[in-house]
Amino acid sequence: MDTRALIEKVTQMSGFTRSMGVAVDSVAEGLVVLSIEKSPDLTQFNGFFHGGVIAGLADHAAGAAATSALPAERIAVTVDLSVNYLAAANGEKLLAEARVESQGSTIVVVTVRLSSVSGEQAKLCSIATVTLKSVAAPKMA
Amino acid sequence: MDTRALIEKVTQMSGFTRSMGVAVDSVAEGLVVLSIEKSPDLTQFNGFFHGGVIAGLADHAAGAAATSALPAERIAVTVDLSVNYLAAANGEKLLAEARVESQGSTIVVVTVRLSSVSGEQAKLCSIATVTLKSVAAPKMA
Amino acid sequence: MDTRALIEKVTQMSGFTRSMGVAVDSVAEGLVVLSIEKSPDLTQFNGFFHGGVIAGLADHAAGAAATSALPAERIAVTVDLSVNYLAAANGEKLLAEARVESQGSTIVVVTVRLSSVSGEQAKLCSIATVTLKSVAAPKMA
Amino acid sequence: MDTRALIEKVTQMSGFTRSMGVAVDSVAEGLVVLSIEKSPDLTQFNGFFHGGVIAGLADHAAGAAATSALPAERIAVTVDLSVNYLAAANGEKLLAEARVESQGSTIVVVTVRLSSVSGEQAKLCSIATVTLKSVAAPKMA
Repeated sequence: MDTRALIEKVTQMSGFTRSMGVAVDSVAEGLVVLSIEKSPDLTQFNGFFHGGVIAGLADHAAGAAATSALPAERIAVTVDLSVNYLAAANGEKLLAEARVESQGSTIVVVTVRLSSVSGEQAKLCSIATVTLKSVAAPKMA
Repeated sequence: MDTRALIEKVTQMSGFTRSMGVAVDSVAEGLVVLSIEKSPDLTQFNGFFHGGVIAGLADHAAGAAATSALPAERIAVTVDLSVNYLAAANGEKLLAEARVESQGSTIVVVTVRLSSVSGEQAKLCSIATVTLKSVAAPKMA
Repeated sequence: MDTRALIEKVTQMSGFTRSMGVAVDSVAEGLVVLSIEKSPDLTQFNGFFHGGVIAGLADHAAGAAATSALPAERIAVTVDLSVNYLAAANGEKLLAEARVESQGSTIVVVTVRLSSVSGEQAKLCSIATVTLKSVAAPKMA
Repeated sequence: MDTRALIEKVTQMSGFTRSMGVAVDSVAEGLVVLSIEKSPDLTQFNGFFHGGVIAGLADHAAGAAATSALPAERIAVTVDLSVNYLAAANGEKLLAEARVESQGSTIVVVTVRLSSVSGEQAKLCSIATVTLKSVAAPKMA
């Protein structure tokens, strides 16, 4: 299975990312872009994207980017996640660009820049740093 | 409105926490316990609670704990969130205990301990530290 | 070499912790207390302990606590470190209590509570969470 | 006092950064580069830069970058600091590039990229994210 197909499969197999409607926008080795359209189940009390959605998308994008940089039989699982909320995510779409910063024998470190998109305009709304570890991939049918 | 009513109202007004089914288990000044029952929309590919759900529950619990320690017209919004995933959240319920560690004129710091609960057994699965800032509460009907 | 002797040896072999005057106050499996007395080389512009000293003591205490929980031929090296500064460290002594929260096959997670001590009074001034990985111990004479 | 002079003054007034020998390499609005030459008091047990020195330089560089972006009577103090250690800092010099990512009414967020420099070669060794708050500057003679 190629990397993009693997990321799409994991996104669909995971109830949380499937129900959030995560789209896989682009995949390159060590660099993955995901996005979500706003829906009523993703908001905080002002109607903006909830911080938990932002953290969840950052986590998933980081896992995808890390996995894209690993050998075929390895996947990355999150060890820790740190998110800074810079501005309200008050757009119609949330976009996460995840980039592998470092890949060691066990540990992969990924930074994620998240933008709130309204029409043609994208505003940086959060940044995240995610530490993952490489583990053997589970069997998938 | 008392603190518990306010926390329940914000939980219901926020699509993300309402759709996740967040329950308010207990509220004291600076100490709030929330929980979620597992459902298919909250899982990762192994069927465990997704890391984004864990981060989202930690964020919401921290906001509730911080708000419970603030004067009546103030609420707390998240500045940054850091989560360490210690063990698989493979139980039927996810429980978050949020405790205010420090409250300054602007900044509130909260730690959260999250447990995966199966029947009578609770296992520590994640810890989080959340930095929040105090802002004027929005008007609520 | 027993754990306490190992921690004292590493503290002395490391120029940074030796020059800061780090003292090993107590060592138990998974729980280590270290301290530093204030000196002019450890301050920020107000004369309080510098944030870098606090981060450095937290890091060293976490490494010691993690190593104390590992088998004899393993030591822990820091993967990432997160520190929240809660109050000015304006005492004469800085005390760090490091506790192992979780120990997996590769990853150890430690929380550290740091107090600023003035005479008989201790005030919580910072909290830290440190992620470490277990590696083979280097040979020491 | 201009920004560069202010940063140099704070670096000299603070025992920790003065004793570490922090040099101010460049200052622009929201972007500051600092460095340190290796010395025996800055090492861990392998003779590389200690993680606490890396955290301390990241903290100071972030404070300088944030202050450079604030109005003249404001300075930035650290709320929290998160550092990921990517590779051994085994060079002769440690370089920190700090960049303001976001500046709100109270909170400033800065990312720092730290390189280990050996001769002509620079290797990314750590990344940090620092949350600061703006406060009134103390009087300085």
